[in-house]
Amino acid sequence: MAEISTNKARTIIRKALLKGREMELNPLAVVVLDSGGHVKAFEREDGAAPGRFEIAQAKAYGAVMLGMAGTAQMARAEQQAYFMNAVNGIYGGRVIPVPGGVIVRDKRGAIIGAVGVTGDLSENDAACAAFGVEAANYSAEI
Amino acid sequence: MAEISTNKARTIIRKALLKGREMELNPLAVVVLDSGGHVKAFEREDGAAPGRFEIAQAKAYGAVMLGMAGTAQMARAEQQAYFMNAVNGIYGGRVIPVPGGVIVRDKRGAIIGAVGVTGDLSENDAACAAFGVEAANYSAEI
Amino acid sequence: MAEISTNKARTIIRKALLKGREMELNPLAVVVLDSGGHVKAFEREDGAAPGRFEIAQAKAYGAVMLGMAGTAQMARAEQQAYFMNAVNGIYGGRVIPVPGGVIVRDKRGAIIGAVGVTGDLSENDAACAAFGVEAANYSAEI
Amino acid sequence: MAEISTNKARTIIRKALLKGREMELNPLAVVVLDSGGHVKAFEREDGAAPGRFEIAQAKAYGAVMLGMAGTAQMARAEQQAYFMNAVNGIYGGRVIPVPGGVIVRDKRGAIIGAVGVTGDLSENDAACAAFGVEAANYSAEI
Repeated sequence: MAEISTNKARTIIRKALLKGREMELNPLAVVVLDSGGHVKAFEREDGAAPGRFEIAQAKAYGAVMLGMAGTAQMARAEQQAYFMNAVNGIYGGRVIPVPGGVIVRDKRGAIIGAVGVTGDLSENDAACAAFGVEAANYSAEI
Repeated sequence: MAEISTNKARTIIRKALLKGREMELNPLAVVVLDSGGHVKAFEREDGAAPGRFEIAQAKAYGAVMLGMAGTAQMARAEQQAYFMNAVNGIYGGRVIPVPGGVIVRDKRGAIIGAVGVTGDLSENDAACAAFGVEAANYSAEI
Repeated sequence: MAEISTNKARTIIRKALLKGREMELNPLAVVVLDSGGHVKAFEREDGAAPGRFEIAQAKAYGAVMLGMAGTAQMARAEQQAYFMNAVNGIYGGRVIPVPGGVIVRDKRGAIIGAVGVTGDLSENDAACAAFGVEAANYSAEI
Repeated sequence: MAEISTNKARTIIRKALLKGREMELNPLAVVVLDSGGHVKAFEREDGAAPGRFEIAQAKAYGAVMLGMAGTAQMARAEQQAYFMNAVNGIYGGRVIPVPGGVIVRDKRGAIIGAVGVTGDLSENDAACAAFGVEAANYSAEI
C-alpha cells in the first residue's frame, strides 16, 4: 500500500481550495490524514475561524478510524445519536460525524487516508474534498 | 487587524455590567476573549455563582473558535444536537452553545474577539454583551 | 468572612498593574481568585503573551487550594519536586509553584482569596501582587 | 498586527523543508501557528514518523502561549524542571520545551505566530525553522 506522499497531499489541498474559490464558498480549511489517521498536511485559508483545524481533523479522523465516510457517519448519527456519541468516547472525542470527511482510496481500492474539509455547508465541504482527492488520481468516498 | 486593548476590554465589561443593573438582572459575569480565544479580561459581580467564569468563557470561546455567535450555535444544537456535542469533544468540552456568546468585529468586519456574558436569561445576557461591545465602538453579532 | 468584592478586585488589579508600569516591567497579567479558588476578575495588559491567563490563575490557584503562597510552594518544589508534581496530579495540573501567587487575608487573618501575577521575573510578579493587595487594605503573604 | 497569510505560511514551510534537504537532515515536519496558537498550515515529509505533527505543534504552541522560544524554554527546563512540568499542566500537556519552536515577529516586533520543526537534532530543526521564517521576510527568535 502506497501512502499519500507530501506532493500528493499538496495537490489535494490546492485543488480542494481552488474548488472552494470557484464555487465562491466561505474560507476553507483542508487536512490530509494518512492511513493511521495522523496529520500529513494542512492549510487554513485567510479568514477561516481559528478552530477550523480541529474540525477538519475530526471529520477526517472518524473516516479513517471507522473506515466510514462523513455522509455514512451522519446517517448513523441521525438514526442512533447515542452510538456516535459512544464512538466519540472511545476515540477521545475526536470525531465529527458530518459530510466533509472523505475517504481516500488508491487504484486497488485500499484506504490510504482521508481528507477533511470545513468552512462552508457540509455538502460543499465534501464536494471540495472529493475534487481534491480525484485531482490527485485517487478515488473519493464522501 | 487590531486586537481588543485592555482599555477597550474594560469599557466592554463596565458597560455590559451597567446594562445589567439598568435592566435589573441577576448578578452577571463578563469575559472578553481575544481573536485566538484567550482571556483578555473578566469580572464577576458580587452575588454571581462561583462557576460563572467557566460559563462566560465557554460562551465566548465557541464563538471565536467556530466564527459563529451563540444564537447561531443554539440553532445548530437544536437541529443537530450530536454535531454540537461532537464539536465540544474536539474543543475539550469548552463550548456552551447558547446566546450570550457574542462575536466582536472591528470597523472592517474582521473578528477580533468575543464577549461572553452569563447570569440571567440567555437573551438578556446577549443584550448586555452587545451593549458593551457597541459602547466600545465595535460591532456585535449575537 | 467577607469575600473580595468586585470593587476591591478592581483596585487590586489596577494597583498591581500600576506598580508594574512604575517598575518598568514587562506587560503583566493579574488574576483575583475568591476563597474557593474561582476567578473573580482578571486583566492582561497589551503585549502580554496569550497564555498568561492560565499562568496567573495557576499561581493563585495553588495558593488558595494549599493555603500556601508561591514562595513557600517553590521552596517545597526545590526540595521535593515529586511532591509538587503529585499535588498537581490531584488538582488536575492547575498549579504553578513559583512566586507571584499571593495569599489575601482580611483584617482578622482569614484567607479570603489569592492574587496571581505573571509576565516578568517571579519576584517582580510577587511584588506587584502584594502591592495591589495592600492597596486594597488586605494583607499579602507572598 | 498582520496575521501570517496562507501564502506566507506556504513559503515558510517550503523554505524550511528546502533547508532540511540542503543540510541533508532526516525527514522533517513543519507547522505554522497563528498568534493565538492555532494551526495555520502543516506538512510532514515522506519518511517522517506519524507522530511528528504533535511534536511540531507542541514546540510552536509553547512559544506562542508563553511568548518564549524553544531555546529559552529549554534553559528554563534545565534550571527548573518542575516549572516547565507545571506549565505543561496548565496547557494540557501540549508543550515540548526544546529548540525547534521559533517565534515569528513582524517588522514592528509584534509576535504574529510561531513555527515548529521536528525530525532531526533540535538545533537543526531550529535552523530550518528560522530559515523559513526569514525567507518570508519575518524575523525569527529561536
